[in-house]
Amino acid sequence: MRNSIGRNITLTIFGESHGDAIGAVLDGMPAGIEVSDEFIAAQLSKRRPTGSTETARVENDNFKILSGVFNGHTTGAPICIIIPNENTRSADYEKTLGIARPSHADYTAHIKYCGFEDYRGGGHFSGRITAGIVAAGAIAIKALEKRNIKIGTHILSCGDVSDMDLLTEDPICTAKCIDTLNANPFPVISDISDNISAEILKAKNSQDSIGGIVQTAITGLKAGVGEPWFDSLEGAIANAVFSIGGVKGVEFGAGFALSGMKGSEANDCFCVKDGNIQTVTNNNGGINGGISNGMPIVFNTAVKPTPSIAQPQQSVNMLTSQEQTLTLTGRHDPAIIRRICIVISSITAIVLCDMLSLKEGTDYLK
Amino acid sequence: MRNSIGRNITLTIFGESHGDAIGAVLDGMPAGIEVSDEFIAAQLSKRRPTGSTETARVENDNFKILSGVFNGHTTGAPICIIIPNENTRSADYEKTLGIARPSHADYTAHIKYCGFEDYRGGGHFSGRITAGIVAAGAIAIKALEKRNIKIGTHILSCGDVSDMDLLTEDPICTAKCIDTLNANPFPVISDISDNISAEILKAKNSQDSIGGIVQTAITGLKAGVGEPWFDSLEGAIANAVFSIGGVKGVEFGAGFALSGMKGSEANDCFCVKDGNIQTVTNNNGGINGGISNGMPIVFNTAVKPTPSIAQPQQSVNMLTSQEQTLTLTGRHDPAIIRRICIVISSITAIVLCDMLSLKEGTDYLK
Amino acid sequence: MRNSIGRNITLTIFGESHGDAIGAVLDGMPAGIEVSDEFIAAQLSKRRPTGSTETARVENDNFKILSGVFNGHTTGAPICIIIPNENTRSADYEKTLGIARPSHADYTAHIKYCGFEDYRGGGHFSGRITAGIVAAGAIAIKALEKRNIKIGTHILSCGDVSDMDLLTEDPICTAKCIDTLNANPFPVISDISDNISAEILKAKNSQDSIGGIVQTAITGLKAGVGEPWFDSLEGAIANAVFSIGGVKGVEFGAGFALSGMKGSEANDCFCVKDGNIQTVTNNNGGINGGISNGMPIVFNTAVKPTPSIAQPQQSVNMLTSQEQTLTLTGRHDPAIIRRICIVISSITAIVLCDMLSLKEGTDYLK
Amino acid sequence: MRNSIGRNITLTIFGESHGDAIGAVLDGMPAGIEVSDEFIAAQLSKRRPTGSTETARVENDNFKILSGVFNGHTTGAPICIIIPNENTRSADYEKTLGIARPSHADYTAHIKYCGFEDYRGGGHFSGRITAGIVAAGAIAIKALEKRNIKIGTHILSCGDVSDMDLLTEDPICTAKCIDTLNANPFPVISDISDNISAEILKAKNSQDSIGGIVQTAITGLKAGVGEPWFDSLEGAIANAVFSIGGVKGVEFGAGFALSGMKGSEANDCFCVKDGNIQTVTNNNGGINGGISNGMPIVFNTAVKPTPSIAQPQQSVNMLTSQEQTLTLTGRHDPAIIRRICIVISSITAIVLCDMLSLKEGTDYLK
Repeated sequence: MRNSIGRNITLTIFGESHGDAIGAVLDGMPAGIEVSDEFIAAQLSKRRPTGSTETARVENDNFKILSGVFNGHTTGAPICIIIPNENTRSADYEKTLGIARPSHADYTAHIKYCGFEDYRGGGHFSGRITAGIVAAGAIAIKALEKRNIKIGTHILSCGDVSDMDLLTEDPICTAKCIDTLNANPFPVISDISDNISAEILKAKNSQDSIGGIVQTAITGLKAGVGEPWFDSLEGAIANAVFSIGGVKGVEFGAGFALSGMKGSEANDCFCVKDGNIQTVTNNNGGINGGISNGMPIVFNTAVKPTPSIAQPQQSVNMLTSQEQTLTLTGRHDPAIIRRICIVISSITAIVLCDMLSLKEGTDYLK
Repeated sequence: MRNSIGRNITLTIFGESHGDAIGAVLDGMPAGIEVSDEFIAAQLSKRRPTGSTETARVENDNFKILSGVFNGHTTGAPICIIIPNENTRSADYEKTLGIARPSHADYTAHIKYCGFEDYRGGGHFSGRITAGIVAAGAIAIKALEKRNIKIGTHILSCGDVSDMDLLTEDPICTAKCIDTLNANPFPVISDISDNISAEILKAKNSQDSIGGIVQTAITGLKAGVGEPWFDSLEGAIANAVFSIGGVKGVEFGAGFALSGMKGSEANDCFCVKDGNIQTVTNNNGGINGGISNGMPIVFNTAVKPTPSIAQPQQSVNMLTSQEQTLTLTGRHDPAIIRRICIVISSITAIVLCDMLSLKEGTDYLK
Repeated sequence: MRNSIGRNITLTIFGESHGDAIGAVLDGMPAGIEVSDEFIAAQLSKRRPTGSTETARVENDNFKILSGVFNGHTTGAPICIIIPNENTRSADYEKTLGIARPSHADYTAHIKYCGFEDYRGGGHFSGRITAGIVAAGAIAIKALEKRNIKIGTHILSCGDVSDMDLLTEDPICTAKCIDTLNANPFPVISDISDNISAEILKAKNSQDSIGGIVQTAITGLKAGVGEPWFDSLEGAIANAVFSIGGVKGVEFGAGFALSGMKGSEANDCFCVKDGNIQTVTNNNGGINGGISNGMPIVFNTAVKPTPSIAQPQQSVNMLTSQEQTLTLTGRHDPAIIRRICIVISSITAIVLCDMLSLKEGTDYLK
Repeated sequence: MRNSIGRNITLTIFGESHGDAIGAVLDGMPAGIEVSDEFIAAQLSKRRPTGSTETARVENDNFKILSGVFNGHTTGAPICIIIPNENTRSADYEKTLGIARPSHADYTAHIKYCGFEDYRGGGHFSGRITAGIVAAGAIAIKALEKRNIKIGTHILSCGDVSDMDLLTEDPICTAKCIDTLNANPFPVISDISDNISAEILKAKNSQDSIGGIVQTAITGLKAGVGEPWFDSLEGAIANAVFSIGGVKGVEFGAGFALSGMKGSEANDCFCVKDGNIQTVTNNNGGINGGISNGMPIVFNTAVKPTPSIAQPQQSVNMLTSQEQTLTLTGRHDPAIIRRICIVISSITAIVLCDMLSLKEGTDYLK
């Protein structure tokens, strides 16, 4: 479905980096959910570049809800949100027209769309498009909150700096940490925002870029959500998260580390706690057989360093098939590791709404 | 879609470990593809347990094609393949009835299906169901081969043993390695099958189990396959691969290692080789912006140790909500790392057929 | 989705008229629905040809449930039902090999599948495939009954004979009529089965065939089911019903007759009856804006005469592109008007389950 | 998918009658299709009310393409088109707030959306939303034209006036008639526009409304398009057409008339004409077994009289559950029969693009 995701609750995104506007259509949310413009704006502000460590292209994200909201509540009709593009400097891209930026989608888009793609600023492949995901995700996040489901994404590691690993925390502590990180303008739990900024600045000063690992945690999701086989909670979340530019790996629970463990170390034994069946450890990240087991859902996402760097790079002019050195001069992020956190939480919230609606019906989210 | 995957080319799977039969329906493959019973049988034999390091429950996999094949070719109608279950010993499961096996789907299935699930041998969550994926995947693999697309999955690491990493190989060498590993009864490229068997036996002898990492490589896939955003090649493959029991992580190209690199190290610079645009390195695993770039597709899958171990484990009786020690006595695999390789290749082949058909039409696969 | 229908609750059908077996996979039904082999058998018997007015090819329909049912209840896993083909006489079809039967799918299948189609007895386009729909539909019908939703299809007209029109009946009377017709081996409400049989026999004796109009009524479906625009109840039902061979028209409520009315005649005014909002008339067939309004759903289906007739017909040999006279000698139905009723009820029941599950969640059907 | 339709080529619509804007997202169209603002505007003008026989609410339809088009061509990215709402008079609706208009979706929307629906002017159920279908359909129609596929919809009957029936015309004449009717501001083939206007005016003058039957014809569609069973061309088109407000019946070829024919009358015998296999008659409307046979596709749609009439009607106040007389005072159409023609052609064009892309790949449409 290319630019749409979900079955009962669907998100469709559209737009290009340098077009008139980008946007999203969120369909299937039940009627009666309160929609707060302030919350949407606050979520969008978390995605917006800021400060010396990020791109100088800052946009106001003056989003407009065109449909599906009436008297401050969802109506049940599709919600279209558009966000005008501002502060575009397309001329930056005309200079290097035809030269494929390494590790960007320029070349694959050129082949796929036979030269008709909007190449300015990455066009439809721009990270700019994720603003629509965040705006729509804000509505999903609010709906989940009413069911006491919390979701948060923080920077687990960037350069030599690491945040606490939620995989080993109990559900109550995990929920508190999610509150902490969501209240924080910089998405970390520990007091390491300055350290991470320093890592990013170091990369920027070397005309380079940096990646990292972000960790997402979900609490309050009851057991029994997710489907066997091809709608596994892991598969559905991974599919959504891999759609975001820069993501190259997703692991649930202990993930790749599980591959080096013995069964006796890896297995999550069951216990009864406060009358509820729980697991002692959470190496499976809250999912067995593709279905939630009531423990926190925890997954890590590998984010590659942003491909746009100020150093000259070897490339090819796609129009002439000649090798050519590329020197980028636009305004670029040395790291998207901070900004990607809210995007992952947002798309994951939409996936969870969809998964919940399957078992419970869409009205469950009201 | 729970037990179905794909859009133009869809796979539906059904069955339980101890029911009459398991099976699959493959729909959307064009008419005129040659179907070889021998090849399907050979593929199924790669999934079948064998030798002292794997479960003693061995099945003949006497598959039967019920529909969609006529005079040795696909007809364009849905292909239903069933594989009868044999050699089931359900009594093994009655003994531990109600006690959730740690890290299995017993508990989540019990909650989701309210006690109506077929609990014998994992029921619908059994790895047995993957035989249907392999049988259907054999048809997809053959169709891809006619387009010169090769696909292979090998054990990259298990315990202390490692196979060669295809990520750093060029396309031609990668294609040769795929041929080598597919011709090998044990899915490795180097001469390490005995070493891996020894690792598995060691785990078995300690009443334990072992996991590992498998690597999948695809050559011959032209640039331009895959879709932006929610049908990214990464997302579609990850969704499929995460559906397989035991998978807890998927990474493309250098994956999690990319998160520790600088952009200048990570970026795949472009070059012209033999008149074609290629990349010098392949850290992105052949995919940019969710779309194939013509380089080999390479991804790694983290496989957790099989949860069934012979040691006593702490658990809970789901019927009484009492903690209880569980001692398993059935016939179990100390490792599925060998058997999972063909399953991943098979489901990936079906995903590729679907993705190719989107751009080229289903007749492309004929 | 070709051979699959539905979103949350999906039906996939497979098989050919002269293959080993035909069948269906019903996925998404919640766990815990009682499954009665007797009821499935009884429903299949209503689809089976019988007596002198229908084809002499009679099959026992010895269906087998391969998966998804355990201890007499659905497990929540996909339900695969297969029905072996018996009493096939493929030789009948070899005689006329390559000659397209007028108004059958021979020619279109030949073009679409490039000559690889299984041509025997219509192959995958045979009405035989509808047995899988009826078997799966039996489970859906039982689930709806527990929610007090009744569904029935009767012959509204055939030749010069007509049954009563349920469109003008009130909900209570309609429900009673559904019980009557479902209890009747011949799907009519009035005592007209002999008259219809006589019409069919008349056609048969003239080496001809006959069609008719069937009417489907649903009671007990609450208001609010169905979706705006592209998942309208009308669109979803019509899509399903048009899939059945021989159907060439579908109308809801007064349907085509509405096109000749004035608004003042056509509008269904609202009233309050026993404290409930109802409509005085039911010209819209219980659906406004694609959504059920609580009145009985009533729709009519136009069934063309069966294309297989014993008279010589002008045709073309597809292999030689020569005009050729075709004289059919197989065993054929002079009318499918009786047998199609249960098929339409069955597929409609599956659509309703799917639509209900969207709003209420699949567990609603348990 | 509620507000989305299609598999490879998808249309999503959004908006409310009295909101800021309505719109559509068309996704999956290949890159490189020329997009003409003039043609879109011309198509929209055919849907716009005009003259004394239609609603006085006239809008300029100042559509804006937000994405997916660059340098006058499609880019392959989703095309979002928005059309601002103007000339709304919401006060008309406040007067009758809570009183369900008979045969409108007010009551069903109120139940489904629990009172949160935007009730002004029918909200999301308004015919206004079809402007998005027409704008997106214009792009699909242009793409089909390049493949020499023509599509047209004309008023077959309205009151006592009838246009020529294309079902009995040969392919060449049908194609010419499509050109004629598409060039005509009033969608008829014969010179009957004044007569139809007179019928509509007569209804208006009696404070009443009128419906009719429209006929759609498609030429140039090659044989082999459409899928067996649940993606039959009939089912896919009917699903799309039934989504449009006011449609209560759809029939293909001779449709309901077939139900009264004998097989010998109804069957379309094959012949060879100019070296091509054709049928002598076209009672099946160009479709056998759900697949196009190369003859013109012809189907009729029953349109009910518009429910908004100036006469007092019996109704119910949904907020108080009291019976109440409703007298409408807004600006309403006495007939939508003219305006619906372009909507049906547009949505059918999108369905055809989707169906074609399945077999041929989306690039076929370029």
